[in-house]
Amino acid sequence: MEPNSNNNNNTQQQVTNQWGTKAWHLLSKLRTQSPLIQCITNFVSMDLMANTLLSAGASPAMLHSLQELPDFTPHAHSLCINIGTLTAAWLPAMKAAAELCSRLGKPWVLDPVAVSASGFRMKACLELMELGPTVIRGNGSEIIALSTAVASSSSSSSAQPTKGVDSVHESTDAVEAAKLLAQKTGSIVAVSGATDIVTDGNQVVGAHNGVALMQKITATGCSVTALVAAFVAVDKSHALEATVSALAVFGVAGELGMKMAKGPASLRMHLIDALHGLDEAALQSYVNITSLS
Amino acid sequence: MEPNSNNNNNTQQQVTNQWGTKAWHLLSKLRTQSPLIQCITNFVSMDLMANTLLSAGASPAMLHSLQELPDFTPHAHSLCINIGTLTAAWLPAMKAAAELCSRLGKPWVLDPVAVSASGFRMKACLELMELGPTVIRGNGSEIIALSTAVASSSSSSSAQPTKGVDSVHESTDAVEAAKLLAQKTGSIVAVSGATDIVTDGNQVVGAHNGVALMQKITATGCSVTALVAAFVAVDKSHALEATVSALAVFGVAGELGMKMAKGPASLRMHLIDALHGLDEAALQSYVNITSLS
Amino acid sequence: MEPNSNNNNNTQQQVTNQWGTKAWHLLSKLRTQSPLIQCITNFVSMDLMANTLLSAGASPAMLHSLQELPDFTPHAHSLCINIGTLTAAWLPAMKAAAELCSRLGKPWVLDPVAVSASGFRMKACLELMELGPTVIRGNGSEIIALSTAVASSSSSSSAQPTKGVDSVHESTDAVEAAKLLAQKTGSIVAVSGATDIVTDGNQVVGAHNGVALMQKITATGCSVTALVAAFVAVDKSHALEATVSALAVFGVAGELGMKMAKGPASLRMHLIDALHGLDEAALQSYVNITSLS
Repeated sequence: MEPNSNNNNNTQQQVTNQWGTKAWHLLSKLRTQSPLIQCITNFVSMDLMANTLLSAGASPAMLHSLQELPDFTPHAHSLCINIGTLTAAWLPAMKAAAELCSRLGKPWVLDPVAVSASGFRMKACLELMELGPTVIRGNGSEIIALSTAVASSSSSSSAQPTKGVDSVHESTDAVEAAKLLAQKTGSIVAVSGATDIVTDGNQVVGAHNGVALMQKITATGCSVTALVAAFVAVDKSHALEATVSALAVFGVAGELGMKMAKGPASLRMHLIDALHGLDEAALQSYVNITSLS
Repeated sequence: MEPNSNNNNNTQQQVTNQWGTKAWHLLSKLRTQSPLIQCITNFVSMDLMANTLLSAGASPAMLHSLQELPDFTPHAHSLCINIGTLTAAWLPAMKAAAELCSRLGKPWVLDPVAVSASGFRMKACLELMELGPTVIRGNGSEIIALSTAVASSSSSSSAQPTKGVDSVHESTDAVEAAKLLAQKTGSIVAVSGATDIVTDGNQVVGAHNGVALMQKITATGCSVTALVAAFVAVDKSHALEATVSALAVFGVAGELGMKMAKGPASLRMHLIDALHGLDEAALQSYVNITSLS
Repeated sequence: MEPNSNNNNNTQQQVTNQWGTKAWHLLSKLRTQSPLIQCITNFVSMDLMANTLLSAGASPAMLHSLQELPDFTPHAHSLCINIGTLTAAWLPAMKAAAELCSRLGKPWVLDPVAVSASGFRMKACLELMELGPTVIRGNGSEIIALSTAVASSSSSSSAQPTKGVDSVHESTDAVEAAKLLAQKTGSIVAVSGATDIVTDGNQVVGAHNGVALMQKITATGCSVTALVAAFVAVDKSHALEATVSALAVFGVAGELGMKMAKGPASLRMHLIDALHGLDEAALQSYVNITSLS
């Protein structure tokens, strides 16, 4: 229900066109450079995440062994950490890899899947956030839970899971929480939803691409986080722009895929095909990004 | 080769119609309530299992960390335990989650994948069965092996694997074994096959939907077990009916998917699409359930 | 740039026809015998690997628990070991299963994924190679790294990862390395690439089937290694022929799948469908195998 005068429409059109140009520039760079993206992720998402990265032009490496990190991680261009199937056994490697990236100035991205499912998970996220993630991407419920926990410097609110991995909040309910979290951590914070929200704590951008059915495909959220890692790998000094671009590109691929889909499984296939084949004209004509601040 | 007089046909038609109505009622409830289903399952099945649950309307959570169970499991509506890639490290969480569900009166379902592959696996299943699964679903070979082991109160027959995870028995060869297992454990027992058999130890129901090619897709058996967990989550006081309904719904989705499939991989896609889009008319016209007792 | 006189063309045509006949013979045997293939593999590949084996007619079992090996592995017809997501916790089972196979005269196949990603990974591969793999299959970079390490009897060159799991070398650059590795280990060595190379250290065969887009699908390399394990399971005394046949069959399935694919995800689906439906006429007309020695 925004007031849309012609002037505003023209301005908005220019903003969107500029974002389309930026997103295309970064996707082209990704395809040319094919950065090596290390993923320490959950078991459910590995297949779709690797295929998302490959289709976008990146080179994924699912490598999580603690003793390999000193040899391997310095060669990665960015890191994606996802706590979906977290156990005590995996946490040390996540921390060590994140620490290594922070120390070496490499970007890394955190996906706090179902962070409020347990005190253990919340504590793990709070510890990981202290290692300076470049980007944190979650759904509305996850970002609100993290923001609340960071604000209260406690994990006491953590043992109140409501709905497992699915959000019970709209992304737009989480704007203030996202800004606060960004301010406290220094990370770019992205909230997935009907509108994806991205903020650095000050500026707030809305990425409106994507289709609702993508939520019925497991690991689409995890996979877009990995795509964010790939985009920040090719432009680490503009993490907000890279994050918005990754969300837009994935969302546009979903919209293109939806044209041929007959349900969630065929959407998954067509989305990956569309991501692989995405060209400048389609991206420019579909991208829909607005300033919300 | 049953005698099918006109009378019997009419009666059978009524039985099938009633089952169609029941299955549709439960599927609608599942879509409305979107119950949270915790899955502690094998690595191979996670993707298809999560997508099956999402497509049916449930909210899957693949969470297996021992220290998270006290916080998380009380919020789940049911639990699916699958031993496909069992190791000693995972067993304690399986037992703790099952025990918690039993104590809290939540339904849980056991999938004894390849139970006769090793003595370790048989022992683990026998221990899990002592925690009172609501439903046990396996193929003919698995149910016969479990039933024999329970009857002999020993796992001495366990070290005779024949064919890995694939059954060497027809489900219909396992009817007596299934009844005995149900009587000994108090669980509903389901046997997958050309005809799926479901029994509470007394009543025996045959669910005849599905297509043979589904056996050439990995994790379809695991996924239907998770669907059983979702159906019992919305009607835990009628576990036999919920189990039959879940098997029928998955089988009908397979038949609908088969119309467009050109092989196992496209069948997998179309099956999930069909499960997501399944409507009352299609379910009623395809469902094929008979009383076998 | 080979000289192709008419005579040579005829000879080449005969060679290819003979290979087509051999590959079809082995695929038919695989479909009839449905050998049990144990896979100790990485998390990313489990789904596609299991589906590849099922579509080809084999019976996959992803079973990696150390205490199950004495009961189970003696019943398997071959073993596939893949170190893609290797950790210290998984290595003992890999070694124990490989040792058991070697002792029992069962074929087993090693996929040294990203072997030069770390010293830990290289050391693990060198230890596994001492247990006498029937076949080693990798990409150009992996085979060159292994061959160099074996030749220098040291893993000092291991800590120089360049590109994660993706090869930076053409398979044809690795012919001499592959021959040397085969000579040193006594294994058949296969190098995937635009042309797949297979050698016993003396004879070198080129399998030219497949399409470039297969490299944009995660786990296609892992899956063809598992298919090699299935083919050697039905003809363990001719491991070179079985390996070439498996690579050719998978490559032909890729070419057939490519006719209907619109990107990597639909190629993945059509490839598996094509593998399941592959008939003698299509195999004979597409197979493209040459002698390179």
